[in-house]
Amino acid sequence: MYIHTSQIRVRYGETDRMGYLYYGFYAWYYEVGRVEAIRQLGISYRELEDQGVLLPVVEWHIQYFKPAYYDDLITVKTILKDWPIRSAIRFHTELYNEQGELLNKGITTLVFVDAQTRKKTVIPQILREKLEPYFIPAT
Amino acid sequence: MYIHTSQIRVRYGETDRMGYLYYGFYAWYYEVGRVEAIRQLGISYRELEDQGVLLPVVEWHIQYFKPAYYDDLITVKTILKDWPIRSAIRFHTELYNEQGELLNKGITTLVFVDAQTRKKTVIPQILREKLEPYFIPAT
Amino acid sequence: MYIHTSQIRVRYGETDRMGYLYYGFYAWYYEVGRVEAIRQLGISYRELEDQGVLLPVVEWHIQYFKPAYYDDLITVKTILKDWPIRSAIRFHTELYNEQGELLNKGITTLVFVDAQTRKKTVIPQILREKLEPYFIPAT
Amino acid sequence: MYIHTSQIRVRYGETDRMGYLYYGFYAWYYEVGRVEAIRQLGISYRELEDQGVLLPVVEWHIQYFKPAYYDDLITVKTILKDWPIRSAIRFHTELYNEQGELLNKGITTLVFVDAQTRKKTVIPQILREKLEPYFIPAT
Repeated sequence: MYIHTSQIRVRYGETDRMGYLYYGFYAWYYEVGRVEAIRQLGISYRELEDQGVLLPVVEWHIQYFKPAYYDDLITVKTILKDWPIRSAIRFHTELYNEQGELLNKGITTLVFVDAQTRKKTVIPQILREKLEPYFIPAT
Repeated sequence: MYIHTSQIRVRYGETDRMGYLYYGFYAWYYEVGRVEAIRQLGISYRELEDQGVLLPVVEWHIQYFKPAYYDDLITVKTILKDWPIRSAIRFHTELYNEQGELLNKGITTLVFVDAQTRKKTVIPQILREKLEPYFIPAT
Repeated sequence: MYIHTSQIRVRYGETDRMGYLYYGFYAWYYEVGRVEAIRQLGISYRELEDQGVLLPVVEWHIQYFKPAYYDDLITVKTILKDWPIRSAIRFHTELYNEQGELLNKGITTLVFVDAQTRKKTVIPQILREKLEPYFIPAT
Repeated sequence: MYIHTSQIRVRYGETDRMGYLYYGFYAWYYEVGRVEAIRQLGISYRELEDQGVLLPVVEWHIQYFKPAYYDDLITVKTILKDWPIRSAIRFHTELYNEQGELLNKGITTLVFVDAQTRKKTVIPQILREKLEPYFIPAT
């Protein structure tokens, strides 16, 4: 298992007229969580793209429990529970406010895609090497 | 069952550097589908809010099959399959491109909330009356 | 002079906690105005890009007089007053609400750029031909 | 004069199909610059709103010199050069990339508005006190 924690402050232009962070803007928060989780491994998602691998989202399931408000400092917890299966990698994400309340949680599935052919491909070798230590089976 | 169809053209600022409509921007498309579905009933979602009922999203599950591209004219099919249960209303949404290909589909669950107390409430009478004819049980 | 008029309805996720359309989202509205203005000429901006010409914004000046609100149907008036000078094209934009009130107005300057080299280039021949009839000098 | 510097990393969903940060998303960057500039004074913009003063944008003028790209770490320099005149406050903003290149610069004018009446009001006392030391005339 691999866990990363980021912090993001809610911007004015992300709120809606209810005063809540608009439900769609969480996509950007989840994305930042994933990207910073990868950066912490010592590589950047941009480098993966520059090496010819894209990572589009193929499924997103999110449950909203409490709203986030303007200027809240949100904690984004990003978890890789399972080793990527074939071309797919699945991130678990949890968002918390400053009171430690769980705001929402979700599962985002992405697939490794060749930037040229736009066909599915395997996990890049560099990412595989960085992640493997977190998934060594107990013996 | 109640079905509505809208059309939305993909804006430049909604695409990302892959050239795809960014996965989070579909929240706006799904929202437009729901809002126009309600408007077709003869009421507007804004009126519901002005009467003191909010409708925040509590769950969203979306599966992405194919990307939408810049300037694509997207057909948004919004379906109410089931009568709202207590405070929750569940919309099924399907997006198609101009070739009729299914781009993605999702289920969005929203709850009726009192604008003052921000507590769950029942479906507003005006919306109930407009929707009922589509859910009359066959006898 | 060349004038085009579009209509756009304000989405929930474009409003902010003041209840106003967030000042940055007007960029998408101005963009739609420009794109539809070009489409009315018989070509699409996407085609221009597919032919290798990009049109990034190099300057934007907007004055906000009144807010737009959720669900407002906005009229976007896009005006080309002057023939493009060298690589630059300048659009004047005015937004009106359903009461005909001027909400904001702005000037957006874009430059024709070669998609490969990302260097300035001249106005594409196809766009030039379509626009010229609107700028024929009276004799 | 009062100067503040923030840093913001470009998110994937803020880029467009040119690979550039979309010109409208800079509104969020400029906003973060202003908000963090105020926070550095020891008050938060949210507090000002909670005390009944809104600060909508009434004019924005931005010149784009170079694009920002995905994952760039952008430096946002926010400058108050002049003491607020009547109800208006004017921020100068400059954005730089990691190479120190000026990407764009702009002037944003906002007005203090009473949250209840939505009429112009004067600068809140708390903000006035925090800012005054930076604008004491040399004698």
